[in-house]
Amino acid sequence: MGRILDTIDSPSDLKNLKVPQLEELAGEIREILVNTVAENGGHLAANLGVVELTLALHHVLDTPRDKIIWDVGHQCYTHKVITGRKNEIHTLRRFKGLSGFPKVEESIYDVFNTGHSSTSISAALGMALARDLQRERFRIVAVIGDGALTGGMAFEALNHAGHQGCDLTVVLNDNEMSISRNVGALSTYLSNLRSDPAYFRRKAEIESWVQRIPGIGPNIVRVAEKLKDSLKYLIVPGMLFEELGFTYIGPIDGHNLQDLITVLGKTGGMKGPVLIHVITQKGRGYEPALAKPDEFHGIGPFNVDTGLPLKPASVTYTQVFGDFMVQRASQDPRVVAITAAMTSGTGLSDFARRFPDRFFDVGICEQHAVTLAAGMARMGLRPVVAIYSTFLQRAYDQIVHDVCLQNLPVVFAVDRAGLVGEDGPTHHGVFDLSYLRHVPNLVVMAPSDENELADMLYSAFSYDMPVAVRYPRGSGEGVGVKKERKLIHLPQARIIREGRNMLFLGIGRGVGLALRAAEILQEQGIEASVVDARFVKPLDRELLGSLLRQFERVVTVEDNVLHGGFGSAVLEMAADLRRHCNILRVGVPDRFIEHGSVDALFDELGMDASGIVAKVMETWPELTRTGGWRILRFGEK
Amino acid sequence: MGRILDTIDSPSDLKNLKVPQLEELAGEIREILVNTVAENGGHLAANLGVVELTLALHHVLDTPRDKIIWDVGHQCYTHKVITGRKNEIHTLRRFKGLSGFPKVEESIYDVFNTGHSSTSISAALGMALARDLQRERFRIVAVIGDGALTGGMAFEALNHAGHQGCDLTVVLNDNEMSISRNVGALSTYLSNLRSDPAYFRRKAEIESWVQRIPGIGPNIVRVAEKLKDSLKYLIVPGMLFEELGFTYIGPIDGHNLQDLITVLGKTGGMKGPVLIHVITQKGRGYEPALAKPDEFHGIGPFNVDTGLPLKPASVTYTQVFGDFMVQRASQDPRVVAITAAMTSGTGLSDFARRFPDRFFDVGICEQHAVTLAAGMARMGLRPVVAIYSTFLQRAYDQIVHDVCLQNLPVVFAVDRAGLVGEDGPTHHGVFDLSYLRHVPNLVVMAPSDENELADMLYSAFSYDMPVAVRYPRGSGEGVGVKKERKLIHLPQARIIREGRNMLFLGIGRGVGLALRAAEILQEQGIEASVVDARFVKPLDRELLGSLLRQFERVVTVEDNVLHGGFGSAVLEMAADLRRHCNILRVGVPDRFIEHGSVDALFDELGMDASGIVAKVMETWPELTRTGGWRILRFGEK
Repeated sequence: MGRILDTIDSPSDLKNLKVPQLEELAGEIREILVNTVAENGGHLAANLGVVELTLALHHVLDTPRDKIIWDVGHQCYTHKVITGRKNEIHTLRRFKGLSGFPKVEESIYDVFNTGHSSTSISAALGMALARDLQRERFRIVAVIGDGALTGGMAFEALNHAGHQGCDLTVVLNDNEMSISRNVGALSTYLSNLRSDPAYFRRKAEIESWVQRIPGIGPNIVRVAEKLKDSLKYLIVPGMLFEELGFTYIGPIDGHNLQDLITVLGKTGGMKGPVLIHVITQKGRGYEPALAKPDEFHGIGPFNVDTGLPLKPASVTYTQVFGDFMVQRASQDPRVVAITAAMTSGTGLSDFARRFPDRFFDVGICEQHAVTLAAGMARMGLRPVVAIYSTFLQRAYDQIVHDVCLQNLPVVFAVDRAGLVGEDGPTHHGVFDLSYLRHVPNLVVMAPSDENELADMLYSAFSYDMPVAVRYPRGSGEGVGVKKERKLIHLPQARIIREGRNMLFLGIGRGVGLALRAAEILQEQGIEASVVDARFVKPLDRELLGSLLRQFERVVTVEDNVLHGGFGSAVLEMAADLRRHCNILRVGVPDRFIEHGSVDALFDELGMDASGIVAKVMETWPELTRTGGWRILRFGEK
Repeated sequence: MGRILDTIDSPSDLKNLKVPQLEELAGEIREILVNTVAENGGHLAANLGVVELTLALHHVLDTPRDKIIWDVGHQCYTHKVITGRKNEIHTLRRFKGLSGFPKVEESIYDVFNTGHSSTSISAALGMALARDLQRERFRIVAVIGDGALTGGMAFEALNHAGHQGCDLTVVLNDNEMSISRNVGALSTYLSNLRSDPAYFRRKAEIESWVQRIPGIGPNIVRVAEKLKDSLKYLIVPGMLFEELGFTYIGPIDGHNLQDLITVLGKTGGMKGPVLIHVITQKGRGYEPALAKPDEFHGIGPFNVDTGLPLKPASVTYTQVFGDFMVQRASQDPRVVAITAAMTSGTGLSDFARRFPDRFFDVGICEQHAVTLAAGMARMGLRPVVAIYSTFLQRAYDQIVHDVCLQNLPVVFAVDRAGLVGEDGPTHHGVFDLSYLRHVPNLVVMAPSDENELADMLYSAFSYDMPVAVRYPRGSGEGVGVKKERKLIHLPQARIIREGRNMLFLGIGRGVGLALRAAEILQEQGIEASVVDARFVKPLDRELLGSLLRQFERVVTVEDNVLHGGFGSAVLEMAADLRRHCNILRVGVPDRFIEHGSVDALFDELGMDASGIVAKVMETWPELTRTGGWRILRFGEK
């Protein structure tokens, strides 16, 4: 017998399916999800949780006329499978394949690109207001997790939506956790709603109850109605959302297709903003993911039978950071750690276990995380804020205004810097050197290997000012971490290779790339020096300045955008010194970079060692003649 | 008879004053506030609103041991007067005088620098957590306005504070408006609380009521207690805050010193986070400010008797923007305007009146504002987001992730760019060229005069991609705005002065500075060309490239930080072209710039015309000889 999925080429094919068939389809899709992510890596647990919700949405709505906006967007795999992309799903997250996030360029069913958290209600409200101005009629649904709801901009949007009062559906996908354990009073609040006796109401009950709501309507907190409101609070939970002008419906069992279809259908005709509270289970239907939803949030390729990762992990920068923090905290009681819903992702699980009183997971609240750290630093603590480079963009203003303006000694551990690979353009950390470098008082560092990371973190505490240390996702360079920490004097760069023909100035992962390029060049008889700048700000003017005077040919290498990045800092220094050497900048070009493996992307961008060699040769063809270059020609790799 | 204020040298001198004396003191302080702001300009209305609240806080608390964090901070004048700075208050906002905001460097009573909105609860919570870890005991109070409470990070902090449950007082200073009319469901909610029959309870009533609260305590939303909760909702409003884990107290009359002292005193012993809802009146005690609190939010020098501004206003960039928007919207129904609580400040009052359906004030919610615009642009509208440069820092991630990644045609009208003057380091818009220039797809422009602003806005709509136009606070260059709009081709720069000895490349206000410098140089026989780059990104490579090839001496002039700004973009272009001319960059140095008049600051930084001339002379002393320079010498002005 054929699969039901074989008959589904677009969401309209779902319309005629009955609930039992949809349930069977859900099972087929789960199998695809598990097998695809086992092969390609990806966000498994969240996707397993929303299979029924996604089917119900597309069953009830008239997409693409109606719009679904997926908050964060990592839960969109089922959506992709049933919107004409089932035959490409095996290319998920691969270079030139399907994106792991909604992507307007990919399908008419993807109406808004997402990747960062808490944006969906704002985008949906913008669309709804536009729709009303244009006198059109269609339905707009934002699907947002309970974790993403803690993000401040979700609250800003709820508040504005309640004020505007236009028709809009927000589905709160409550899986009782964000990426790690959910935090905050809101979480307690939602858990109280879940413990409501009416939880998982039966169909008939839901119907009569849904019909009752519109009669009461939103914005009912008037004095004259206070008694009624109080009664309502007994009947209808979700007062917090009602206070903000939403009609609250829920909680609903997010794996019961019949209930979902009923509620989504009935709420379609309701006036004003509606919040449907749906309870789902992360990892639903796959035992290993159910058992460890945190590990299966974002995961690399794994064995389907055992749920174990295929590649034994080598030491990552993240682990080095985590180990350092535990060690440091045991010696220095002033050290505290702050994360924004990324305990495990940032390597702080151990710290959290060992020092629960000094560990703060604030939810998906990067802004609050940074200013909280500023408050702590003001009182004499030494807070370390661990946030991915791309998410730290959310706290740019707080870094400037609350930390650096007051010159407070906060250490920023900026993980996932540079190209991150398969998560693509929403997640690459390629702007941080540019958005941090111009902030007064801030020291900006990037380690070239894992031992340097440990030394930089160690040294950061001694500078007594704000310091950002940015480092890449994944494995180190394999050098290991020495037992003894070395103090890196501010702003000391280091020469790691000497050669007379030209100079590479590398930062972070750029140092390794430069070294490998230098080795290729040596085979051709060209001798290159390589310097690890270590600091993007301040630059080691003494060493770098004297080197700029020695060399005519200088190449800067960084995995940051070229505009305003490390190479730009070197140009500024050279201009200030009135030194006119040739400076070639290698880095990420001025466009958003697609998804794919980091190696594939470096290759594509000409940033791998052979790409750098090719650029050097194009820029200084005379090196070929003087240096005995024979084999490589411009354009070859 | 002497003033009571003469006896107040520090807050401890308030302790023995009785309520009638405090009331008299409040009157004395109001007189000082009105006279000082009439002379120096400043934030009058907000300060007049919190005189009693400030006196009550310092009367009850044991400052500086206890800490007060002023959200935004523009309401701190009374605080400054009674914490030992009454004799300096006449220097308020003047160069080298008292800051208009709390400043740690200025006084031990200022515990956290503020300026931007919605940071106080995060900072206060950070301090409270640090206090508890250090096993100290003192009280921490955040004072936040109802406008600032709409900012997402305030919600993030409330949520986290409710979760942590540590002792912390948040005073909600509800003056029923933020800078302009307050918006959002939260505003409706607060206004419902204000209409509570128990509003302005009498003293005895408050006492018994305050005593009742702690027994009930926070986090009480359990099913078993639902009936009690519902009854509580009848008795105690503020359920929204209670749901987030706060004990809500209020509303209290913020001008009744006795009530304030009672409630602040009683709540001192309460466990866990407490929110005290205080109702104040913006502009209290000064008729013109009461009548027009919006105009008296931030105001220049005015006549105390009439309340009228001293200087008749000349045409400002802000007005040019406002006029353009009205004109454009009447021709193009796709145009909508979005502001974050700055209707009047951004020049949109006219637009709001003429096109109420197409005008959106979202509250102090820059993040939401930008993503809302992205949603609208996705549906075919042409949103214009008008936000001050310094506040747009809050939405950096949304600009990158929600607008530019999708290449959506949103126009950013970035007002108050460059040095803003008296509001100082928290408000200077000197980072925008650096934080915007590296964002792919974004066009970044800056007009050199008011006519150029109108033409740039006009042209921005034709580029069909994200465009930021940044322009300074205050008056234009006096050239006026032509009736006909001119299309500026992307990315066309323009030559505005020709001379053979050297080249000035200016952007925005830098063009006028360069022109004046060129005029001084001409008097010395040195002929300088001046180019208005217009675009920071993309640069006009054709024109600028050919000019770089012609000139050996190039000076870039911008009112942005030198790191990663316009001059840096020119260096990048020169390096890409392998052109080795001498490039001198004039701009804001790598430190936070104090407050003072814009002219005083330009002078201080050597960025005024004579400062630029001095720099040119220092860099190229040979010009003196070849160009017949006689009078000026390095170091002279």
